[in-house]
Amino acid sequence: MFENAGRTEISSLGEFGLIEHLSKNFTIQNNTQLGIGDDAAVITPTEGYQTLVSTDLLVEGVHFDLSYFPMKHLGYKAVVVNLSDIYAMNGKPKQVTVSLALSSRFSLEAVEELYAGVQLACERYRVDLVGGDTSTSKQGLMISVTAIGEAKSADIAYRSGAKVHDLVVVTGDLGGAYCGYQLLEREKRVYLDNPSVQPDLGGFDYIIERQLKPEARKDIYEILKTLHIKPTAMMDISDGLASECFHIGKASQVGMSLYEEKIPIDPSTYNFARELDLDPTLCALSGGEDYELLFTIDQSDFKKIEHHPDFSIIGYVNEKSDGMNLITKSGNKHALKAQGWTAF
Amino acid sequence: MFENAGRTEISSLGEFGLIEHLSKNFTIQNNTQLGIGDDAAVITPTEGYQTLVSTDLLVEGVHFDLSYFPMKHLGYKAVVVNLSDIYAMNGKPKQVTVSLALSSRFSLEAVEELYAGVQLACERYRVDLVGGDTSTSKQGLMISVTAIGEAKSADIAYRSGAKVHDLVVVTGDLGGAYCGYQLLEREKRVYLDNPSVQPDLGGFDYIIERQLKPEARKDIYEILKTLHIKPTAMMDISDGLASECFHIGKASQVGMSLYEEKIPIDPSTYNFARELDLDPTLCALSGGEDYELLFTIDQSDFKKIEHHPDFSIIGYVNEKSDGMNLITKSGNKHALKAQGWTAF
Repeated sequence: MFENAGRTEISSLGEFGLIEHLSKNFTIQNNTQLGIGDDAAVITPTEGYQTLVSTDLLVEGVHFDLSYFPMKHLGYKAVVVNLSDIYAMNGKPKQVTVSLALSSRFSLEAVEELYAGVQLACERYRVDLVGGDTSTSKQGLMISVTAIGEAKSADIAYRSGAKVHDLVVVTGDLGGAYCGYQLLEREKRVYLDNPSVQPDLGGFDYIIERQLKPEARKDIYEILKTLHIKPTAMMDISDGLASECFHIGKASQVGMSLYEEKIPIDPSTYNFARELDLDPTLCALSGGEDYELLFTIDQSDFKKIEHHPDFSIIGYVNEKSDGMNLITKSGNKHALKAQGWTAF
Repeated sequence: MFENAGRTEISSLGEFGLIEHLSKNFTIQNNTQLGIGDDAAVITPTEGYQTLVSTDLLVEGVHFDLSYFPMKHLGYKAVVVNLSDIYAMNGKPKQVTVSLALSSRFSLEAVEELYAGVQLACERYRVDLVGGDTSTSKQGLMISVTAIGEAKSADIAYRSGAKVHDLVVVTGDLGGAYCGYQLLEREKRVYLDNPSVQPDLGGFDYIIERQLKPEARKDIYEILKTLHIKPTAMMDISDGLASECFHIGKASQVGMSLYEEKIPIDPSTYNFARELDLDPTLCALSGGEDYELLFTIDQSDFKKIEHHPDFSIIGYVNEKSDGMNLITKSGNKHALKAQGWTAF
């Protein structure tokens, strides 16, 4: 009996009770007419804006490991990775729906934690939770999020607009989330081998945060507006820089050349990669989950971002026939490989 | 080796290859600017219309049993039950996103079947597939669908608008999907006991179809317009008539009285329920999954639908303090119980 102290079974609330309970602290602040509580949410589109829709699935054991991923962080991340897709269109997210499938191993308290993370993300990014569905699952936890946003037609940045001679730009730094994942996996193995050993995460707060609590680059939307830059193509870096370059290349029918030395890598990412005998560049190229933005701009915009601390110009767009290339620090040109992380 | 003839592993395509492969036969016909292939879909809202958003989760072993649920039907149903939510707002669905989590037991051919059902639903209901995500799962199949639709603000029927003295109306007939489920479960048990016995489904095609291939009432949207009726409240019947009456009652702060003899039940539903010693009325009240529409109308609209074959007037709205009641065939008044099907 004491084993269950502080544990409330979800079944004690029922499906409707659960949704009502979990969503009661959420408030509506955007163009949402009606959120949760009817057959569908009702949204008033802003005149002259297009609607953007993106959806992502997070599956336990595939996308996250609850032995080190706190439920609150998971709820936060599930929302943020979807918002990132809206920012990647040069749009503003306004609403999300969050659906959960939960095995009986999850208590109400655990789900409340997850929703606390969802709520934090909704508040920070000013989006409204407008719907969702909850169900049992036979095994594990699954989260499905759909994000809805808005952008003016002329502002939308597709993957398909990159032109030869455009510059290739990334925000922030890359490889951190992947190194954070490697660190957490390492400490998990150490713990499983010997539960009395305390995890050694010291000095690597940054990469752990990149993995457990990624942020979407909502600031870039404003910065680009202020600088009067419209990216010719844009997407977010969820599967790794190389993989995303191939996506833009394919959609725009172009190739790219990236300079290894220009790829932004945080010192703690670099140091941790070295500690693990990993190539920091490869972590940045193939790691994924950094949720930075990758975009291309016309050369005439070069001066506007040349010294901007949020941007790194990492290469240029070339003819499709010239392929996807990485120019190494030693000056050699290699064919870039798309080794994006895949859920299959 | 021969065991795998006709079976292609999903991993052979990869995540992006899979999405591309599955969506290649879909065409765009609505206000969709861009469907699958970028970070987000782009939709042009129709001027003067609100956007409606609804989402549902279908989990193997909870919502469907693949031992008798064909993959194509499942894909069809997953879309249809979401469209039903948009029709239940008195709106028109325009787009869907479909996300899948699949264990390794599913072959590419199985997923193609599922998508054939998704495509059939998209064609029949004229909606565009605009996005989705695919992932492995540790166990089983999960489908998450989000439907997006449109309605003029003045046309939207919320759950909250029912007024005392309104009439309570349902479309079609009820209890069939539940009886179909009972029949399929019975034949499954028979088969498991003795695999040489052929399933005995004869004469019950209708209730099986109600379970395996439900349709959303897209015709009602047009009929109501033609009749110049705007429901004061509306929702779709996914969890059972009784449960939905309670939802409208709660949202509208009213009670209802239903006449048992007015609840529409198809003869094959009635006969099958009797065969299984089930109460047909209880099947209709608590069965769920019929995806018919439940709505309330002002008494002044009575003449317009009095003899309409698609509608049954089953009761009236009363004061909240008078509660939710069922008036039996023998004239007795009982308190209605919400025994809606629940996923917990």
